[in-house]
Amino acid sequence: MKIVLILLFSFCTILSFAQISSVADPVERWGRFEVELKGSSTGNPFNDNWLTADFTKGTKKITTTGFYDGNGVYKIRFMPTETGEWNFRTKSNSKALNNKAGKFTCVNPSPQNHGPVIVNGTYNFSYADGKNYYPFGTTIYAWTHQPNALQEETLRSLATARFNKVRMCVFPKTYVHVETPPELYPYKAKSQTKTGEDIKYEWDFTTFDPLFFQHLEKRITDLDKLGIEVDLIIFHPYDKGKWGFDNMGKENDLRYIKYLVARLSAFKNVWWSMANEFDFIKTKPRQDWDDYSKAVVANDPYRHLCSIHNGSVYYDNWKPEFTHVSIQNGSLVEDFGRAVLLRDVYFKPVIYDEVCYEGNIPSRWGRLSGEEMTEAFWQGVIAGTYVTHGETLKTPEDVIFWAEGGKFNGTSPVRIGFLRKILEEGPGPLELADPWKDHKTSQADSNHYIIYFGKQMQSEWFFNLPKKNAPSAGAKFKAEVIDTWNMTITPVEDTFELAEPIDYRIADKQSKKIRLPVKPYLAIRLTRI
Amino acid sequence: MKIVLILLFSFCTILSFAQISSVADPVERWGRFEVELKGSSTGNPFNDNWLTADFTKGTKKITTTGFYDGNGVYKIRFMPTETGEWNFRTKSNSKALNNKAGKFTCVNPSPQNHGPVIVNGTYNFSYADGKNYYPFGTTIYAWTHQPNALQEETLRSLATARFNKVRMCVFPKTYVHVETPPELYPYKAKSQTKTGEDIKYEWDFTTFDPLFFQHLEKRITDLDKLGIEVDLIIFHPYDKGKWGFDNMGKENDLRYIKYLVARLSAFKNVWWSMANEFDFIKTKPRQDWDDYSKAVVANDPYRHLCSIHNGSVYYDNWKPEFTHVSIQNGSLVEDFGRAVLLRDVYFKPVIYDEVCYEGNIPSRWGRLSGEEMTEAFWQGVIAGTYVTHGETLKTPEDVIFWAEGGKFNGTSPVRIGFLRKILEEGPGPLELADPWKDHKTSQADSNHYIIYFGKQMQSEWFFNLPKKNAPSAGAKFKAEVIDTWNMTITPVEDTFELAEPIDYRIADKQSKKIRLPVKPYLAIRLTRI
Repeated sequence: MKIVLILLFSFCTILSFAQISSVADPVERWGRFEVELKGSSTGNPFNDNWLTADFTKGTKKITTTGFYDGNGVYKIRFMPTETGEWNFRTKSNSKALNNKAGKFTCVNPSPQNHGPVIVNGTYNFSYADGKNYYPFGTTIYAWTHQPNALQEETLRSLATARFNKVRMCVFPKTYVHVETPPELYPYKAKSQTKTGEDIKYEWDFTTFDPLFFQHLEKRITDLDKLGIEVDLIIFHPYDKGKWGFDNMGKENDLRYIKYLVARLSAFKNVWWSMANEFDFIKTKPRQDWDDYSKAVVANDPYRHLCSIHNGSVYYDNWKPEFTHVSIQNGSLVEDFGRAVLLRDVYFKPVIYDEVCYEGNIPSRWGRLSGEEMTEAFWQGVIAGTYVTHGETLKTPEDVIFWAEGGKFNGTSPVRIGFLRKILEEGPGPLELADPWKDHKTSQADSNHYIIYFGKQMQSEWFFNLPKKNAPSAGAKFKAEVIDTWNMTITPVEDTFELAEPIDYRIADKQSKKIRLPVKPYLAIRLTRI
Repeated sequence: MKIVLILLFSFCTILSFAQISSVADPVERWGRFEVELKGSSTGNPFNDNWLTADFTKGTKKITTTGFYDGNGVYKIRFMPTETGEWNFRTKSNSKALNNKAGKFTCVNPSPQNHGPVIVNGTYNFSYADGKNYYPFGTTIYAWTHQPNALQEETLRSLATARFNKVRMCVFPKTYVHVETPPELYPYKAKSQTKTGEDIKYEWDFTTFDPLFFQHLEKRITDLDKLGIEVDLIIFHPYDKGKWGFDNMGKENDLRYIKYLVARLSAFKNVWWSMANEFDFIKTKPRQDWDDYSKAVVANDPYRHLCSIHNGSVYYDNWKPEFTHVSIQNGSLVEDFGRAVLLRDVYFKPVIYDEVCYEGNIPSRWGRLSGEEMTEAFWQGVIAGTYVTHGETLKTPEDVIFWAEGGKFNGTSPVRIGFLRKILEEGPGPLELADPWKDHKTSQADSNHYIIYFGKQMQSEWFFNLPKKNAPSAGAKFKAEVIDTWNMTITPVEDTFELAEPIDYRIADKQSKKIRLPVKPYLAIRLTRI
């Protein structure tokens, strides 16, 4: 019996116990420490042996679950949440895996590592180190099941785009425009029958294929290196009897959740998305989603972000398993005054994780213009919510980014990146200053306003702010006109000074106006001076 | 010891047991049967004696709670929910009240009695007998605390208006424009101190004043005779230390709930509104509202409608105590596409129970035009939700309907009545046919459409419907142009025949249009022929 300690992302020091054979350098905070144990490969090692480990540091204890990774190798992964010396000791029903102990030192993270994303306050997110995180996501539902060269191209595209979150599925997807069969499957096939091009598999849902999961992990790690969070979709309805991964039965579903979470919970950039379009998965009764969500939370010692995405019927997003709200509904961000409403209902961060996609396919969910997609982001962000992009533009190769990855061909990604920059330049997340009465005036605080006009065009803007949440009379602001489509920021020469409020609004002392070029998609940024 | 049986609204027959002294005619289904018992008037009869009764009919048993009504009289009220012979037997810690039995016959209701309002399906209401009920409410928060002549005038106004629901408070209200001190109070004062005009009371919160509640009951009965449901507000924040009814402590709050529900649950037109603007009552922590709501439900054997109304922060309306959602938020009904959103979230009927009021007071919540108030109703109704009116128009006498009653002076009530008529003429409640994509086209079913244009003016409407939920090609419709402001319904001479759907819409076979007069607030009604 041998324990090999592997450190991913970083250096790792082991002050080894008797059983431990190797010594490594320290692990970064929120990096990953991995214990590898040799054990039995007979019978069904996925089922027959259980393995956990207690990681302790002073009075702090985190219990993690190990998993079988094939070839007689068992692993336990751990994401240290605090610097200092951590000890661990394993428990197992298998003697070879039981009571193995060791320790390592966790050191401060490197500059690009801000830790996992957590909920910050009621409606927003930050990294664990406190840095604000504003989700600007896109979708690549089935990218890890595409040919390898395409996967590499996808990573290159994401490296230059400004998205910091992707929604992607564990299970492969079969759908119009998504037809290439995957190379790897999550389970070992008991048998396969070929009829023409079509292969019918019979799976053993108790025997995972570690190669599939190792590949998934590699891609999650690739995304982490790009600073991209992975909103990992555990179940989806795009199987349609082809493989049966949407219809494994509740026991196998829970077995899969446990295995997946054991493998991935130590990856700092993983979020759990219980499903894409949960209500379109007709094989699972609504109430079972409670059990699935609870299983994810129970098996994840770090409490990664967790949500459930709907098709046409919302889930009970107020339930405590869900850290935030992941909604499909394009109408909520297509006009002023709607996006804020779900914040008021759920008291959680809201991400409109499907608002239709920029594209040109016949389905109406896939034919937004770049202008519409970009406006959806602005409508969401000024209301203190977040929006997810997707691209369904047809390409000569019939490779569509939305599910397969490849290249971005749309006009919105660069504008979405511009909005991200605007938001990151500000002092914090935006929200409407007077949300029931003014659907355009957003603020990070009383020193920083963004007024967004969307499709409404006008030749001037009479300087005026809601009295609510405004600074006192005499406060001075500078202004910039932002063209959100052409991505320009033009300073206004004049400065502005708040008068006393009249009724519910505050104007400039001299009733000054700002000249606008009578174009759509403009915004004004006001900064206190 | 004597038992007197009193029947309200109807005739009552008692086939008397030994203890029962009087015989009456049958009780209507959903009418009210009342047992009156003589008992102790010493000590604190509100606290010292408990009294319940089991009403049985075959295997059906309903247990109700009695209450002390002053002068040594104890009462138990019962609303029979089924026709046939009902038996009852009391239980009490007081010998004089214990083990009293009797029976009566419940007969079919009279034509105007449709029973209490219940939830029908997911998003709508009906009376218990199955007749559709569409709430068209107004507010008279403090009308029962006004001088008697004003109360009578209020009833006369309501008799000719078309509202079928009012929101009103149990406790008196002190507020700008609401200054007349009430004649009756819910508690007996231990002492009172007069300073100028101001009287400071010290209450005994364990001793109710039955006269106050008898008066409230009389007014609830008066409203029932007009076919008006009473959305009875149990707590509110408009006390501000004047009487202290918003700050009695949790034990007294629960005592009050129990007494109120014992008295009123047999009134068929009562709904429980846990609060107006619950979050503005700073003396009660948010979590206590769960206990208050549970106490109402536990003490109400009939499970009357129950909701909780917010100020600026919503309550957890998904909780099972709440039969429907009672929301304050004007912005949800001021433009297209917002009202439907809360339906999707809560899976309950939604009433926008405060969307600002038609009026001319300086506060922005009280200065809607009649047009705005009327449009709010239409925006709510086409989206399958309901809206509540209120009137804050100043009068020479400074009597404002919103809180005090009196006369309606606004322009919206008659238009709201017109909308009610339109809805009642249709086959059922409306909902948007394609809610995420078309915020104007509403339908009761595929034979009955209402398309509402609000402030948008146009010279013609190209006949077209969403493919979703539409009848097949060949279906024929007649059309009427509705001027919702001028309350006219103008038939269109032409008829229309559906073509095959193209993309997501269905036009007329000959691409016909309907001429419109380029005025605001128009609608089109389509009826299948």
